[in-house]
Amino acid sequence: MKSDDYRVRPGKKISLNDVPTDDARGCTKEEALVRKPQLLLHLTKLQERLYAEEKQSLLVVLQTRDAGGKDGTVKHVFTGLNPQGVNVTPFKEPTPVEQGHDFLWRVHPHTPAAGMIGIFNRSYYEDVLVTRVHGEVRTGEVERRFEQICAFEELLQSQGTRILKFHLHISKDEQKQRFQERLDNPEKQWKFSANDLSERKLWDEYTGAYEDMLRSTTTDTAPWYVIPADRKWFRNDVISRIVLETLTDMDPQFPEVTFDPKTIHLR
Amino acid sequence: MKSDDYRVRPGKKISLNDVPTDDARGCTKEEALVRKPQLLLHLTKLQERLYAEEKQSLLVVLQTRDAGGKDGTVKHVFTGLNPQGVNVTPFKEPTPVEQGHDFLWRVHPHTPAAGMIGIFNRSYYEDVLVTRVHGEVRTGEVERRFEQICAFEELLQSQGTRILKFHLHISKDEQKQRFQERLDNPEKQWKFSANDLSERKLWDEYTGAYEDMLRSTTTDTAPWYVIPADRKWFRNDVISRIVLETLTDMDPQFPEVTFDPKTIHLR
Repeated sequence: MKSDDYRVRPGKKISLNDVPTDDARGCTKEEALVRKPQLLLHLTKLQERLYAEEKQSLLVVLQTRDAGGKDGTVKHVFTGLNPQGVNVTPFKEPTPVEQGHDFLWRVHPHTPAAGMIGIFNRSYYEDVLVTRVHGEVRTGEVERRFEQICAFEELLQSQGTRILKFHLHISKDEQKQRFQERLDNPEKQWKFSANDLSERKLWDEYTGAYEDMLRSTTTDTAPWYVIPADRKWFRNDVISRIVLETLTDMDPQFPEVTFDPKTIHLR
Repeated sequence: MKSDDYRVRPGKKISLNDVPTDDARGCTKEEALVRKPQLLLHLTKLQERLYAEEKQSLLVVLQTRDAGGKDGTVKHVFTGLNPQGVNVTPFKEPTPVEQGHDFLWRVHPHTPAAGMIGIFNRSYYEDVLVTRVHGEVRTGEVERRFEQICAFEELLQSQGTRILKFHLHISKDEQKQRFQERLDNPEKQWKFSANDLSERKLWDEYTGAYEDMLRSTTTDTAPWYVIPADRKWFRNDVISRIVLETLTDMDPQFPEVTFDPKTIHLR
């Protein structure tokens, strides 16, 4: 796998309908399942160093349509890491208090501190997607928010935060199937909401909003990745590998101590 | 194992020097290691229900001396749970801003929301331990804080939060050995601080402060447990079992939906 294959290039228009949702690039489920514990082992080692170093942090943003696999990605990619070094923030519909502020106000307190991996399950990108599709913000305002988002991400990066943004790309059929599974399984029915149906009707409007978002907010340092996500095992495998690649590149180190351990005598 | 064996009874004086730090009650390391994946499997299932139910929450408070095993407990007991449902908050020395408020001010925002497991790595109990041993608060103030803590915990419980408080009980020799291991291992040296040595000299003062704290703040509904913690595998095993026992007793349920799934037809 080359992670570059999934990366959205700055300034290039993207047509989501031309990007396959079920392409596994010749990789088999068996290969992915064999690789999973190995990836996790490497991830935990790097996480330990990141936490000890306490200089850099990693922010992972997950966006997708309803039933697109955000919760599953959190569960399958990040379970097994030390929870002390991971912070997951799910962003729901803004409260009245939150709506009294700019759209980044509620997000800022949850950005990962040095040493941490922060995961946004939905994010500030909802404010250029759902609000836009429902006509709550004008096009000019959306353009302005794209710039505000880029400035915000640049601020985080200047403090040592690496940013990875994943759009989990599923087909309309796959969504239908997942909704049906939720309806059929008494332990999953709570995940279904009538709202999901009305949003599904706006499929094409969302496609356009996603395309604009991806094109306007992907950068060399805070790239968007479009991940074929119909097959859950493949989605998890690719994201794990991109996270591992990124942490490897960040190369965190155990801190050097300022004292000489040999001079300390315990009593 | 009976978790009651480790529970501190309200109104009963406790003498920590009489409580063994290395008693494994006939349990072997092999038994504990075999049990570990089973415990984790049950924990993850209950965690999933707790998160879905979104009515109750669990707060786990970890207190102990330096090198007592807080980080290790978080790592070994809670790694493997879905990080989306777990929130670990390590409390460090208060900042000047935090010191400008009452001692519960910085804690309150981190109490677990409905559906969540919150873990406090150190906690508001430091404010009746370290501050007391260093003479920063008078005895009368400590007594007052005990009452304020009980009122605070009652508030959390009234909203559906279950509270478990663990004192990881290690011997002075075990602490020495763990400090030495940190000094000898380049990947662990960063965990050692000169401050650890001066605190070690106050061993007996801390013992007294812990005893008062345990006696004054253990209740039937928010009990303290004193866990023999010289053997890490035993500590992890007992805590996992008490957490599992508690979640089992909380008995979270998947929410029932208000719609009839059969009437929904997807297109």
